[in-house]
Amino acid sequence: MNGLKIAVIGGGSSYTPELIDGFIKRSNELPVKEIHLVDIEDGESKLDIVGNLAKRMVKKAGLDIDIILTLDRRAAIKDADFVTTQFRVGGLEARARDERIPLEYNVIGQETTGPGGFAKAMRTIPVILDICKDIEELAPNAWLINFTNPAGLITEAVHRYTNVKTIGLCNVPIGMVNMVAKMLEVDSKRIKIDFAGLNHLVWGKRVYLDGKDITDEVIEKLCDGGSLTMKNIPDLKWDKDFVKSLGMIPCPYHRYYYMTDDLIEEEKESVKTGKGTRAEQVLKIEKELFEVYKDPNLNQKPEQLEKRGGAYYSDAAVSLISAIYNDKKEVHTVNVRNNGAISNLPDDVVVEINAIVDKTGAHAITVGQLPPEVNGLVQAAKAYELLAVEAGVTGDYGTALKSLAANPLVPSVKIAKKLLDDIISANKAYLPQFK
Amino acid sequence: MNGLKIAVIGGGSSYTPELIDGFIKRSNELPVKEIHLVDIEDGESKLDIVGNLAKRMVKKAGLDIDIILTLDRRAAIKDADFVTTQFRVGGLEARARDERIPLEYNVIGQETTGPGGFAKAMRTIPVILDICKDIEELAPNAWLINFTNPAGLITEAVHRYTNVKTIGLCNVPIGMVNMVAKMLEVDSKRIKIDFAGLNHLVWGKRVYLDGKDITDEVIEKLCDGGSLTMKNIPDLKWDKDFVKSLGMIPCPYHRYYYMTDDLIEEEKESVKTGKGTRAEQVLKIEKELFEVYKDPNLNQKPEQLEKRGGAYYSDAAVSLISAIYNDKKEVHTVNVRNNGAISNLPDDVVVEINAIVDKTGAHAITVGQLPPEVNGLVQAAKAYELLAVEAGVTGDYGTALKSLAANPLVPSVKIAKKLLDDIISANKAYLPQFK
Amino acid sequence: MNGLKIAVIGGGSSYTPELIDGFIKRSNELPVKEIHLVDIEDGESKLDIVGNLAKRMVKKAGLDIDIILTLDRRAAIKDADFVTTQFRVGGLEARARDERIPLEYNVIGQETTGPGGFAKAMRTIPVILDICKDIEELAPNAWLINFTNPAGLITEAVHRYTNVKTIGLCNVPIGMVNMVAKMLEVDSKRIKIDFAGLNHLVWGKRVYLDGKDITDEVIEKLCDGGSLTMKNIPDLKWDKDFVKSLGMIPCPYHRYYYMTDDLIEEEKESVKTGKGTRAEQVLKIEKELFEVYKDPNLNQKPEQLEKRGGAYYSDAAVSLISAIYNDKKEVHTVNVRNNGAISNLPDDVVVEINAIVDKTGAHAITVGQLPPEVNGLVQAAKAYELLAVEAGVTGDYGTALKSLAANPLVPSVKIAKKLLDDIISANKAYLPQFK
Amino acid sequence: MNGLKIAVIGGGSSYTPELIDGFIKRSNELPVKEIHLVDIEDGESKLDIVGNLAKRMVKKAGLDIDIILTLDRRAAIKDADFVTTQFRVGGLEARARDERIPLEYNVIGQETTGPGGFAKAMRTIPVILDICKDIEELAPNAWLINFTNPAGLITEAVHRYTNVKTIGLCNVPIGMVNMVAKMLEVDSKRIKIDFAGLNHLVWGKRVYLDGKDITDEVIEKLCDGGSLTMKNIPDLKWDKDFVKSLGMIPCPYHRYYYMTDDLIEEEKESVKTGKGTRAEQVLKIEKELFEVYKDPNLNQKPEQLEKRGGAYYSDAAVSLISAIYNDKKEVHTVNVRNNGAISNLPDDVVVEINAIVDKTGAHAITVGQLPPEVNGLVQAAKAYELLAVEAGVTGDYGTALKSLAANPLVPSVKIAKKLLDDIISANKAYLPQFK
Repeated sequence: MNGLKIAVIGGGSSYTPELIDGFIKRSNELPVKEIHLVDIEDGESKLDIVGNLAKRMVKKAGLDIDIILTLDRRAAIKDADFVTTQFRVGGLEARARDERIPLEYNVIGQETTGPGGFAKAMRTIPVILDICKDIEELAPNAWLINFTNPAGLITEAVHRYTNVKTIGLCNVPIGMVNMVAKMLEVDSKRIKIDFAGLNHLVWGKRVYLDGKDITDEVIEKLCDGGSLTMKNIPDLKWDKDFVKSLGMIPCPYHRYYYMTDDLIEEEKESVKTGKGTRAEQVLKIEKELFEVYKDPNLNQKPEQLEKRGGAYYSDAAVSLISAIYNDKKEVHTVNVRNNGAISNLPDDVVVEINAIVDKTGAHAITVGQLPPEVNGLVQAAKAYELLAVEAGVTGDYGTALKSLAANPLVPSVKIAKKLLDDIISANKAYLPQFK
Repeated sequence: MNGLKIAVIGGGSSYTPELIDGFIKRSNELPVKEIHLVDIEDGESKLDIVGNLAKRMVKKAGLDIDIILTLDRRAAIKDADFVTTQFRVGGLEARARDERIPLEYNVIGQETTGPGGFAKAMRTIPVILDICKDIEELAPNAWLINFTNPAGLITEAVHRYTNVKTIGLCNVPIGMVNMVAKMLEVDSKRIKIDFAGLNHLVWGKRVYLDGKDITDEVIEKLCDGGSLTMKNIPDLKWDKDFVKSLGMIPCPYHRYYYMTDDLIEEEKESVKTGKGTRAEQVLKIEKELFEVYKDPNLNQKPEQLEKRGGAYYSDAAVSLISAIYNDKKEVHTVNVRNNGAISNLPDDVVVEINAIVDKTGAHAITVGQLPPEVNGLVQAAKAYELLAVEAGVTGDYGTALKSLAANPLVPSVKIAKKLLDDIISANKAYLPQFK
Repeated sequence: MNGLKIAVIGGGSSYTPELIDGFIKRSNELPVKEIHLVDIEDGESKLDIVGNLAKRMVKKAGLDIDIILTLDRRAAIKDADFVTTQFRVGGLEARARDERIPLEYNVIGQETTGPGGFAKAMRTIPVILDICKDIEELAPNAWLINFTNPAGLITEAVHRYTNVKTIGLCNVPIGMVNMVAKMLEVDSKRIKIDFAGLNHLVWGKRVYLDGKDITDEVIEKLCDGGSLTMKNIPDLKWDKDFVKSLGMIPCPYHRYYYMTDDLIEEEKESVKTGKGTRAEQVLKIEKELFEVYKDPNLNQKPEQLEKRGGAYYSDAAVSLISAIYNDKKEVHTVNVRNNGAISNLPDDVVVEINAIVDKTGAHAITVGQLPPEVNGLVQAAKAYELLAVEAGVTGDYGTALKSLAANPLVPSVKIAKKLLDDIISANKAYLPQFK
Repeated sequence: MNGLKIAVIGGGSSYTPELIDGFIKRSNELPVKEIHLVDIEDGESKLDIVGNLAKRMVKKAGLDIDIILTLDRRAAIKDADFVTTQFRVGGLEARARDERIPLEYNVIGQETTGPGGFAKAMRTIPVILDICKDIEELAPNAWLINFTNPAGLITEAVHRYTNVKTIGLCNVPIGMVNMVAKMLEVDSKRIKIDFAGLNHLVWGKRVYLDGKDITDEVIEKLCDGGSLTMKNIPDLKWDKDFVKSLGMIPCPYHRYYYMTDDLIEEEKESVKTGKGTRAEQVLKIEKELFEVYKDPNLNQKPEQLEKRGGAYYSDAAVSLISAIYNDKKEVHTVNVRNNGAISNLPDDVVVEINAIVDKTGAHAITVGQLPPEVNGLVQAAKAYELLAVEAGVTGDYGTALKSLAANPLVPSVKIAKKLLDDIISANKAYLPQFK
């Protein structure tokens, strides 16, 4: 085929226009021929809406890209050059449960972090491994660009249990670069951050402006009220003594570990006041978004998408795809095999790190030892992830229990067990591995 | 000098009769000539009481051991063969504060674990390093056998900041061996446990009876109500699913990490009902003990000492000293440099582990990789310890804050800060390093 | 069965009386019931001779041990408690070729080191793996005590490709202890050496007399003419500047690496003068030995066996077996999984090291980092070994070539190739894996 | 100052026009203001000749760059932005001795490899450390770009014993890229090689054309006569079985390790026939070159410089300087701290590896584990280097002896000692550290 074939698993997602916009913007360097938007039966109507918007967007851009809407995943994957995944097993309803269940036990209720992320992982692992089987069979040379959360954990699962070439991607690092740029009122291209850690637990070890180390200045601003957060994370202020002593930039999700009590309060308050969990808020936004998407005159990414929280995803994703396709030897922050880059971690675990990207993939750039204050948390979180991956694959109750008990946000084995039982019971339909 | 010189720092401790008893029992293999019981001015009256009991004990045993009571630490250390440390900076009053302060923030209030252990470490590090300076100058060939809690952390400090030959010792491993023996109604010599972990966070990886692996059987009994705890730790039952999946034996102190919520409740209840914290209970026991010690007719270790909680200390300590002196090449469970024994940890950190002991010291026996569920917690705890050691030496506020925030029992940076401020303020007299 | 069943593979070896002697000496602690001496058809007459001597020895000792002579390996292995291996594929004739072939290319011609050891490994690996299959099937709980040379490499093969519990054993470490004792005219029990390295490439890091470090004194004596060698290695003197700077004791086989040129000369001279290679000399000794063994009045280990070079084998072997059987927790120097004991080497390679031996096996005691001068050679030798094991299993020509080229004693790829071709051609009958 | 200040230590080198040419070519991206060519008194006349050529070259290019000729090293270094080193302690006469001495003992006589490289390192280390003291004092922010051979070893010394920011550079990797490009008749920009190893012992793990893996094809061509060598290394053909089994591309210098015997013969032949060692040949070329340089009409890099052997140096060097200055985030192959990039080596040793270069330096890109056949040699060579660095700094005879004995090209301790004594005696004037 002349031109690239892209398969988007979870094509009916409200993020899809973002992604299509990315392909349009980079059409001069990425000769995309076909984009297959795949979804499951339950998502057919959404797929229709968003798919038609995608078609109008491409048409408006005057590009010769076929947008194919399909429920046939295998056909979409066959001979694809890139497969991207942005599906959500169980939909926002399942996410809402992920967020609510932990709150009952006074534990962080969050989509990707803590027990919520665990539940999401349990639902997602069987599906992603299934997709990988299709890729191994039908498109063994394809790159799997995984956005599906918890992205680091899912990439770890793919890495351990399949032969698929995969890179996990998150918008947090690119978001941090952009937020620092905004804070300093400079173009984001002039900012470079040495990232190291795990997905949603990544540190900016050093920050540079035009190659000059400005970490201390950024820390000052950050603690003096300069915001560094995501749409979906409350903008609680960092403790200055703490962050200055750290000497590096925490990511917005670190709040769940460092401000656990305040965030639990905030989440409980949000539920109590009827604002609902984040999922419940997103449900509303999504409804509105799909109404907007339906407009047959809309032929570009609507402004309202910004509110949805996935800013920079298209940038991160399509520029990564382009770096691979064009053998760019460019630095991206991705989830890949550690391979010695972080010296305190084993070679074979997935980390979130700066990597040089070329046609052969993403190669982690060394950062050496993490200091104890970072290493302790990273090791604990990675231990949880490894156990969660194993539990997600085997469905072993004891492993699942050890995983939750190992999660730094779960306060005791007793609560881990209650959470696990509630999660299994609430997600029965999606957990074939737990018999 | 013919015969050994022993210096006991904190000689006025209520544990001393235990130690003297140990030397008496092993007098056939350990030719002790002098035992110097050293204490500080504030402890002089206790030193008198316990020292005179020691003299009566030795006399009754018909041994030619000089018991010297002294406030002159340097004289006691000079040319000593072994220095043991069992002192408590600030006494039980400080310990009571260590236990009470965290409870105000709904955090475990415990002598060696969590913020209480942190506070104790901050008070102890300046003193132990001072003692080590004396040893370096006056008895460079002496072995420092450290019982002072938090024993692993203090041994880490000595290891990192002095040239003193040291081995850290705890009665938890020997206690676990004895408790398993009791549970199975066999002689404790027939039980062997492969220990690995950190002080007060040590796992029995495998348990053997006469060389036969009986780990699973012990786990069954343990969860079916077989007790495995210390005097000072509430006997909460383990979750069977969890421990069976672990496949190894937790130490009694693991309860603080795995049953955090229940233990906080128990501690708060104990305070509320007027029973007081553990320190406050011990204060009473100690008072009674010293009354007993005063009896001029008492010339042996009194039964009441058992209640005090330090069972097996003398056994662990004196048999370790004998293994060194007699070049025994015998296995002891001690706190020493990891040196590769636990593969997931750096070579240069102190771990609690089985080691072969001879005249040249204690050499860790390899155990390979810890599984993730153990590694995560051990790494987090060691990160906390390394930061605490650094804070204890430098008195740097930021490092101390990072240390507490890194402690797995402290739920947030905000609480870490409150705890730190309270600890510094309550311990001012003992924290010269924090200016 | 009451009492132990021992299977001796290669039972017709001239060493067998040594081993029988060992079992007799330790009969009070090792309740041996049956010793099965197994050999192949070609070795039947030797088996008869040595087996009958064994029977006479046992009878004279008044012990109730059945000596069974057999060609049925599977029957011998079935339900054995210990399997020892001391066979020699191709006999001394093959060894003679191993020693001669390298000399043609001016390369060390030695039984276990260099290309000779490689050839021996290629012949031995298929047989040992076959034996291990039998053990896995017929005696899965048996311990395989492997003396078969190259012992480290063969243990590595068993370790990597089978599930058999194995410990590799060599008489070099025990020989070094005894030679140091002799040099200092003290009882060998008073000497302790911290060994670390690989089989036939092991260093005595520190030497102790009654726990006192006497390494420097031993080095002085060693270089001033104190002999430290084996029967089969020419007693060339060590360079004092070199060994003093090393600060540790080389093993006799280190001469092949540090005195390569002189030893090649010596070997060539030996061949030229008609004295023959070591194998050819041993052939003569063996002939004489078997004549002696035939004497129906001989009922003990004959003095002439000493000349054979296997001194201390029985001591090393039977005392190791007893340490396992009696759960002794005793230090032995053995070939086992590194497991972190030597920090510069991976966990999963076999090293020769002090280990604590109990019913569950041999557990390496940590030694930390090797200094560069030792690490460089050990890494190179281990690289060769890993490749040789792979070549021995797969029969891949390229891997075999890389292995020989990686051997520190082989000067070039060209010579490696010639050696490999000669070795394959000369050993065709024994190398089924090389097609 | 507006514009960059460059200090070139060893400015009188015949390579200088190459370097000047590089700065001229990249004048659009590198605003060089001053180039200080420094040399020692003995080199003054050469400095004059080459310096004046440099001035004419700059003038012809129409650039406003000051060329300063000086013997005052400190003045040249003061406030420099980049310091490059290309000096040769003892000149080509010393190199000739380095090449001749080993040949007397039938050992490779080569400038950077084996005992010749050792001798050069001993002469160079005191001088480079002295230069670094100046940089630490006078230009602490300067980058030291080190070409001085043995470049890896010298970079290791600077890295271990100074605080100077340094990157070691060699033209071998860029040469290999160019030679592969030539072999395939494609533009060298389309070739990418994953390099890993040590300086002059670097492997091309994988070779890519436009991102496509062509390693096997390159290996085929390489062994079928496709040349891959340097001007100064005889073009001996690789063994196809060997290189195919390696599955990676050796560097030209690997011949010294894999074809040792043939190269010794070649070197001896060259001396015997009067052609002389490489140094002696270069002496002639240099004489001619300086004659050419004297020509007042010459105002560009003369063609004859190609023969000298330093092709691509200017490209490697000036493009590296530009990548730093312009914060390019570009991949270069350099000698830097390993930092985990090669998993089998410690973090803190210098390796030759692909690195991402920006304003903050060169950051190694991870390659994971080296296979045993590569690891064995790399470890042995790095062990030699570490000992050589220590010997070069301390002048300790024993360490020097251990270093030479650890060099894979030195066959015995006896020869190591003879070589060492000859080297010390022949270089007395340049080895102040060896007293």
